[in-house]
Amino acid sequence: MRLAIMSVAHLHADGYINNLRAVPDVEFLGIADDDLARGQAFAEQHCTRLYESYDALLADKPDGVLVCSENARHLPLVLQAAEAGVHILCEKPLATTVEDCRTMIDACERAGVKLMTAFPMRFSPPVIEAKRVVDSGALGRIYGCNTTNQGSCPKDSRAWFVDKELAGGGAVMDHTVHLTDLLRWYLNSEVVEVFAETNAILYADATDEVETGGLISLLFDNGVFATIDCSWSKPKYYPTWGGLAMEIVGEGGFTTVDAFRQKITVYSHDRGRPVYKPWGSDADQGLINEFVASIREDRVPSITGYDGLKATEVVVAAYRSAETGQVVRLPLE
Amino acid sequence: MRLAIMSVAHLHADGYINNLRAVPDVEFLGIADDDLARGQAFAEQHCTRLYESYDALLADKPDGVLVCSENARHLPLVLQAAEAGVHILCEKPLATTVEDCRTMIDACERAGVKLMTAFPMRFSPPVIEAKRVVDSGALGRIYGCNTTNQGSCPKDSRAWFVDKELAGGGAVMDHTVHLTDLLRWYLNSEVVEVFAETNAILYADATDEVETGGLISLLFDNGVFATIDCSWSKPKYYPTWGGLAMEIVGEGGFTTVDAFRQKITVYSHDRGRPVYKPWGSDADQGLINEFVASIREDRVPSITGYDGLKATEVVVAAYRSAETGQVVRLPLE
Repeated sequence: MRLAIMSVAHLHADGYINNLRAVPDVEFLGIADDDLARGQAFAEQHCTRLYESYDALLADKPDGVLVCSENARHLPLVLQAAEAGVHILCEKPLATTVEDCRTMIDACERAGVKLMTAFPMRFSPPVIEAKRVVDSGALGRIYGCNTTNQGSCPKDSRAWFVDKELAGGGAVMDHTVHLTDLLRWYLNSEVVEVFAETNAILYADATDEVETGGLISLLFDNGVFATIDCSWSKPKYYPTWGGLAMEIVGEGGFTTVDAFRQKITVYSHDRGRPVYKPWGSDADQGLINEFVASIREDRVPSITGYDGLKATEVVVAAYRSAETGQVVRLPLE
Repeated sequence: MRLAIMSVAHLHADGYINNLRAVPDVEFLGIADDDLARGQAFAEQHCTRLYESYDALLADKPDGVLVCSENARHLPLVLQAAEAGVHILCEKPLATTVEDCRTMIDACERAGVKLMTAFPMRFSPPVIEAKRVVDSGALGRIYGCNTTNQGSCPKDSRAWFVDKELAGGGAVMDHTVHLTDLLRWYLNSEVVEVFAETNAILYADATDEVETGGLISLLFDNGVFATIDCSWSKPKYYPTWGGLAMEIVGEGGFTTVDAFRQKITVYSHDRGRPVYKPWGSDADQGLINEFVASIREDRVPSITGYDGLKATEVVVAAYRSAETGQVVRLPLE
């Protein structure tokens, strides 16, 4: 199977290259990027081919592509790949508007290509184990979930993350979709109400465009309440970029999940600060494996474009709620 | 009861003032220091009286004093206080030579005053609990103990700690005596053999006089082996100054003790790095309480000058071993 990457704006592309190269019988063709300097630097660093354009890359007829552009630029790349009849794994959030998500899903359906949303946390062993516990009924009826997906402000390493036009928003856009997806998966239920508070107190100097802190309350159709703290609340000198954790409370008990607990702390003299080094399973590898398997077995991937749309819908509702101070009901419109 | 502090060179004096002020019916008189500027700054910071000299302080007839000078200057202050008939709690190490320890012990005996060595770890709840477990026989016969007392190099905050003449040595002098004392206490046995390796690789720029790393092997009279890692091995940006931990292995099981585990981690923007804030019991308070109680009840304190001498003897033997590459047998001479 021949795979390639369209845009390396999202630095998850770094890890994905290694993941692609680790899959037996997958040939990693190379990358294309509309920022030629960025593409060139990336291609050199990873010893891979740089196509001169997205057209040139698609002309090489890959079986599938990973779309790792800025959030707002997912749409044109997905449409281009779909028209070329190429399967697509798209970075999260699938798009910055629900309309864009719908357009992408429709285009992929018409073209008969797969569209998978990159929610790697579904392949994290502790997250999977907690899903098993919930499904087993050991916790009884689930009452509520308190969840956190925090991080450092990515401004320094990836300036476009704080550019409202390219990213679609700040911490809420960056960090809400993972947990929304996991909660939908755990609860087999859809969000019906969203209430959100956001501000830009943390990293106040990072940007005057986007929020850096957000706390979102969700009500699911089955009556479960959940909160998502999706802030960029880790200081610059924090030992890692962030983390994802959940507390799941049920009638029969509760469990906690810390997806990034498998780590050692290194006091690196070069860095001048403590640094977490993870030693646990690479969830991204599970994501790539599933994308490859869905193409090989010609089946729907375990995470779809629709999952991407539903998570994006919650983000859009959160922004609307933060702006109006009102609870926003889903589905939108 | 009226108590005072002679020299504030050792910054444990900071904490001791609060500990003294916390004991009911103890009147804290003030401090004296041969470095007047240091004494003045300290007195102002702690809103306490600065005596113009040690003589003036002793002329005020305190019941007891805390000696917190540089290690090599304990001897003259202890002799002066003993001659004045004042009970003494002396910072660790009791002295930098076994001869000085002996002179101090003899002088206090002749003067009929108490001499206590400041080994606060004997009052640490986890350390006490582990002593209880060992004494209960739950671990069976003890085979060996691996222990660590590490820290950051104290050069920046207390320059005399890396001055060989004033401190008597480096990391080995600073950090060996606590664990030697605890091991003697746990095992009810004396050290008969010492082997040590030291170097100055860590913090190589801190000093050309003293070692910054040390690993000491001890054989006790009852056959138990123990090691002490007494290095200044924590980097400057480590969240705390250091710690003390033990692993005690017996025929029937083993236990581990981390004396400073009761802490939270604060990511303080002012400091620009993580900082540990302890929330557990203050072992120093136990030390001060015992000193006060031994005076009140006119009895021998639970830790004596002899305990200070035996710990110092191990340090001196460690330096001799590191210098010669040979195992050194105790008692010395």
